[in-house]
Amino acid sequence: MFIIGELINGMYKDIGEAIKKKDKSIIEKCALAQIKSGADALDLNCGPVSKEPIYDIQWLVETVQAVTDKPLALDSSKPKVIESGLKVIKNKAIINSTTADLEKLEILVPLAKQYQTKLIGLTISSKGIPQTKEQRLELAATIVAYCSEGGFAIEDLYLDPIILPVNVAQAQMRDILESIHEFKIISDPSPKTFVGLSNVSQGTKVRSLINRTFITMAAAFRLDAAILDPLDRDLIDALITAELILNKQIYCDSYLEAYRRK
Amino acid sequence: MFIIGELINGMYKDIGEAIKKKDKSIIEKCALAQIKSGADALDLNCGPVSKEPIYDIQWLVETVQAVTDKPLALDSSKPKVIESGLKVIKNKAIINSTTADLEKLEILVPLAKQYQTKLIGLTISSKGIPQTKEQRLELAATIVAYCSEGGFAIEDLYLDPIILPVNVAQAQMRDILESIHEFKIISDPSPKTFVGLSNVSQGTKVRSLINRTFITMAAAFRLDAAILDPLDRDLIDALITAELILNKQIYCDSYLEAYRRK
Repeated sequence: MFIIGELINGMYKDIGEAIKKKDKSIIEKCALAQIKSGADALDLNCGPVSKEPIYDIQWLVETVQAVTDKPLALDSSKPKVIESGLKVIKNKAIINSTTADLEKLEILVPLAKQYQTKLIGLTISSKGIPQTKEQRLELAATIVAYCSEGGFAIEDLYLDPIILPVNVAQAQMRDILESIHEFKIISDPSPKTFVGLSNVSQGTKVRSLINRTFITMAAAFRLDAAILDPLDRDLIDALITAELILNKQIYCDSYLEAYRRK
Repeated sequence: MFIIGELINGMYKDIGEAIKKKDKSIIEKCALAQIKSGADALDLNCGPVSKEPIYDIQWLVETVQAVTDKPLALDSSKPKVIESGLKVIKNKAIINSTTADLEKLEILVPLAKQYQTKLIGLTISSKGIPQTKEQRLELAATIVAYCSEGGFAIEDLYLDPIILPVNVAQAQMRDILESIHEFKIISDPSPKTFVGLSNVSQGTKVRSLINRTFITMAAAFRLDAAILDPLDRDLIDALITAELILNKQIYCDSYLEAYRRK
């Protein structure tokens, strides 16, 4: 599983303040801690505190790529913020994210091609959040078709079924899990699949347990990547064990330690 | 998920000694502790220490049904031991288990009909343990066909794909998981599905984590029942959370406690 660390996000108090004060050390520490715990890439999101996200995203990119060459996910609903980050990025980049709306696809797919980035595509549109597996597949097909026609490599597209919180959308959870599997057969070559994990436990009292149970199931449904909190050790242990069972990590008695030493 | 508690088994030292000494209190305690922790039924296995399993299984049945009316699984590879247990059982019974071999089916399917029990069918035969999903399905179909022709209700049949330890059969794990799902579509009405969970972690160093990760995935593949250690609280928590995500437990903030109070 390709793990994108979610913690460099201005909605968290310490990160929000670091962005405001331009305190590099907080951001650097957060980047390195996530990588040490297993993050393959780092998400960068200026959050709601940022008054100048077009500037702040560049500061985040420059701060983080000074300490790691891991891929960076530029996380904003505003294409201009993403484009601004791309202008200064040297590491590999992930655009997080486009929706299935034409006005987003028209800007972000060409940008992803131009900067040779990966692209996360949310199966959501201005009409709202899909309520059924069929709606998710329809939006996924829209994104895949646009990318295909635009010459963007489908292997670099990460489709997100949009996880809803289990406490408000319990009846949709199996649909969401099955969508992950079905996205893989939309086209050949297959798109990749992705989830924003923490949303599943939003507003619940046992967040870590719900998160790790969902990701374990999602792994069985052929999930390729997720944005999550890599500092949650129980979550990473569950994920490594899921991959062990799915024959994607080699077994040895100390496979958990072996993963962390890699 | 229908949980069969695995702990009343003569291979465990305390249970083996209790069977030898006919010490009812150890058995009673073990029965009640498992039920309190979430077991829907209890497995009874005399184990290798029993010199007279035909007698000992009757003693186990009588001891346990004096303290609970939960279903009891008569667990032996010897049909005569199972038949002996059936002669004294008052609670609902589960035969654990038949293989796909004709000489077993010929005895156990009529017994299951006569005593109106559930029947666990292992997808294994005297030719050995299946190595592929296709072999598992073929053996499952043999058992289903025999039960159908014999007038045994398929809804009362629990098919077991035979879980192998992850440290020796890592490449077969996805096949085993997918078999669970595919067993459900062998016939209409569907047979039920079942696993002996602990085998997956046999010989590994982090047994509980591997057990609960596997059962979480198996739940997503529509597993109906499992024999497991209900005293493993982390395992039961994972199972309840899996069922929450699959919309089989109603969400409330304290859903773990609510399950335990039921």
